[in-house]
Amino acid sequence: MTLFKEDLYVLNVGLASFADAIVDAGGNATRIEWTPPAGGDAAVGRALARLVNHKDVEAANSKAYAAYLSSQPILEGIELAKTAIPGMGARTILHAGPPIPWDRMCGPMQGAIAGAILSEGWAQNDANARRLVESGAVRCEPCHDHGAVGPMAGIIGPSMPVWIVRDAERGHRTYSNLNEGLGKALRFGANGDTVLARLEWMRTKLREVLAAAFEVSGPIELKPLMAQALQMGDEVHNRNAAATSLLLKKLAPALLRSKASRSDVAEVVEFIAGNDHFFLNISMAACKAMTDAARNVPLSTMVTAMARNGVEFGVRVSGSGSRWFTAPAPLVEGLYFPGYSIADAAPDLGDSAITETAGLGGFAMAAAPAIVKFVGGAPEDAIANTAQMGHITLGRNNAFTLPSMGFVGTPSGIDARRVVDTGICPVINTGIAHRDAGVGQIGAGITRAPLACFSKAISALAAELPPD
Amino acid sequence: MTLFKEDLYVLNVGLASFADAIVDAGGNATRIEWTPPAGGDAAVGRALARLVNHKDVEAANSKAYAAYLSSQPILEGIELAKTAIPGMGARTILHAGPPIPWDRMCGPMQGAIAGAILSEGWAQNDANARRLVESGAVRCEPCHDHGAVGPMAGIIGPSMPVWIVRDAERGHRTYSNLNEGLGKALRFGANGDTVLARLEWMRTKLREVLAAAFEVSGPIELKPLMAQALQMGDEVHNRNAAATSLLLKKLAPALLRSKASRSDVAEVVEFIAGNDHFFLNISMAACKAMTDAARNVPLSTMVTAMARNGVEFGVRVSGSGSRWFTAPAPLVEGLYFPGYSIADAAPDLGDSAITETAGLGGFAMAAAPAIVKFVGGAPEDAIANTAQMGHITLGRNNAFTLPSMGFVGTPSGIDARRVVDTGICPVINTGIAHRDAGVGQIGAGITRAPLACFSKAISALAAELPPD
Repeated sequence: MTLFKEDLYVLNVGLASFADAIVDAGGNATRIEWTPPAGGDAAVGRALARLVNHKDVEAANSKAYAAYLSSQPILEGIELAKTAIPGMGARTILHAGPPIPWDRMCGPMQGAIAGAILSEGWAQNDANARRLVESGAVRCEPCHDHGAVGPMAGIIGPSMPVWIVRDAERGHRTYSNLNEGLGKALRFGANGDTVLARLEWMRTKLREVLAAAFEVSGPIELKPLMAQALQMGDEVHNRNAAATSLLLKKLAPALLRSKASRSDVAEVVEFIAGNDHFFLNISMAACKAMTDAARNVPLSTMVTAMARNGVEFGVRVSGSGSRWFTAPAPLVEGLYFPGYSIADAAPDLGDSAITETAGLGGFAMAAAPAIVKFVGGAPEDAIANTAQMGHITLGRNNAFTLPSMGFVGTPSGIDARRVVDTGICPVINTGIAHRDAGVGQIGAGITRAPLACFSKAISALAAELPPD
Repeated sequence: MTLFKEDLYVLNVGLASFADAIVDAGGNATRIEWTPPAGGDAAVGRALARLVNHKDVEAANSKAYAAYLSSQPILEGIELAKTAIPGMGARTILHAGPPIPWDRMCGPMQGAIAGAILSEGWAQNDANARRLVESGAVRCEPCHDHGAVGPMAGIIGPSMPVWIVRDAERGHRTYSNLNEGLGKALRFGANGDTVLARLEWMRTKLREVLAAAFEVSGPIELKPLMAQALQMGDEVHNRNAAATSLLLKKLAPALLRSKASRSDVAEVVEFIAGNDHFFLNISMAACKAMTDAARNVPLSTMVTAMARNGVEFGVRVSGSGSRWFTAPAPLVEGLYFPGYSIADAAPDLGDSAITETAGLGGFAMAAAPAIVKFVGGAPEDAIANTAQMGHITLGRNNAFTLPSMGFVGTPSGIDARRVVDTGICPVINTGIAHRDAGVGQIGAGITRAPLACFSKAISALAAELPPD
């Protein structure tokens, strides 16, 4: 009975017009930011409602997340793709993201595939290379279908060297190509003579010298190295300066004790020391090893892959195995190199969002305040992004702690239910390729995975539940 | 006339009892933390008052601070101390901190001096080594009097190798010994066979191989390297993991292209890769080059050196040249290794507070949240320490930016006036030596420079002013 005599403290959730009326009448109302689950899509909302608090889903997610946490990726070594990657056909080129036919591919991916075909020696010029794919003589398949990941265009040809990572806990292997450095590079769609010459050097000299080093060093544990890099300002997606240094600290003594010639060792050390992104591809293979550990748990809504082919953004969740849930790939806000703008950019591209899938990259931005000089924004944004990702993840990975947030573990194990429920989409740090083949990188920035991928996944998983 | 009818908002500065009376009477009072300038010493307060806002002092400080900012330390190379350091006598041992007679030295400094004498071959056992100093046959002098700095005991003998740093802007040179690694080390007062054997290896193999590398690499600019390390979680005093990696990235290619043998290069790379503190001594010499640039500006109250000998803490200010203002060295709060406590510790020791004098170390802790795992506290404390140092410094050094604080420059150029005025004493990150010779490091922590050093400096500089 005292309500009308007291000062009212009003919180308004949802429609702004309720709060407007109170303010118009001279009262105060605090507006709570809120949007309906599933972006207001009633069918998806009903699917979500069936999955939320469902005990079988909870149990499945606990199992999947525990598998991810317990994964122990180790870098075993380096080999040619055709030797290392099981089931890779002789005339197959792997690419980033979900499957896509040649004629729908973005410019940089087509350019990179043509470059890979030239590099393999299957064609002598760009036009002939493209014709081989159009005719079906060369097949293009997603890296992810072969346990592999590649940044940007993500191109892997049979005679490219690949990193081999093994989950010591479960034994499965993952693969990634080797990082070429910044600027004109195959992964950004450049395929000129310098790009092809570097690929040839990587296939021969770099591979042989690194293989010799691994004979001395043996496998390298990746989780402690990545954890240490997080203490040194990396988020091991777009910032790998510390991780690359730490890797070089491990490799340099082994290189020196190896059978490789001194001048070859010097060349390789200079190449690694000159490319702060060298560790990125290893980070990606490690992240895929960790997220693959969580695959194929029936009914689990945990995301096990996010990948982009420059046209579509694809998401996989544990409970639906290797099925892709796709939506158009977004453009990337960020810092563009002088002379370029978002109008020149290809949409979001690459398998590197596997790092975010594993709770690193954008999810661990709080560890890497200096990254905002590369991707844009302020250090507070980096911390805010990490904090926000805590709302859509299953837990904290205490193997990867964030110094600036009091050493809490990084938010990890994206729960597709929470993404759809809150409308908070996974944040991704990424490089930006020019939309045309042959140009290369034109910037770096931050984007978000599209909500529609997660909505489709939720609908599909709800259909797996027995009827209520 | 309305005062007694209104709600009162009371701020209380100074004596708590004023606020107590208001609270007792039912009112509210906000207590402002404040202590009288100069710790309440009236004579020092009067001296301070003469220096504050004095236009000649302001001009002197601007000149000194600008000189510090413009310094460009470059690492020129490595040589034996007797060759490199001008005026170093044949039978002289340099030590950390202000001058101190042998019989007043702390245990670790005596142990380290004895070790250096054994290492020089001037005596065959510890007792004879000590007798040489007692008899005056070996002289002990501060590093700082010879343009040098050394961490902890800071011992430099004539045939030890030293880093040579030159300020490219002004041409003056500074020196530091080489870092031995953690655990049992001469700088912590250990002087057993393994310590002496390592010193011998450093004098011969390490020095020769590094000198060969410098023939290839040429001088290395230190400011950009240190700035990059601040983006990677170092404060380049107690955390040098990134800086050491960055140095190795520069040195490794030069080592491989040098005339040194492959197995020697491997030994040296392994030594550097195995010691995350390797860069510390280079950082210290760079910091001394920067602060020496600001020396000898008449009337300037800018601090140009802070150094401890384990008994006394000494401070130099620009306006009084090489004069030391001393007070008893404090004990260090921090994280002690298992089995040790503050009761086992020598008081604050070493020239490494030159990093704080240059706006790094404790002053740049905000760049290095992970350091709290080594020195104690929480990441918030690291940021709070850096923020607080902004109250006692002349400006921000934009060559050294702090990512977690929005890329502001590190607070630098300690103004002795502001220390005495506010009672805020410079914060110092430091290692902790056992009080007895021969034991070594037992922890790391945070301490403060004693107020009395700055009060004495203020009194001395006020006496330089012409009468009012």
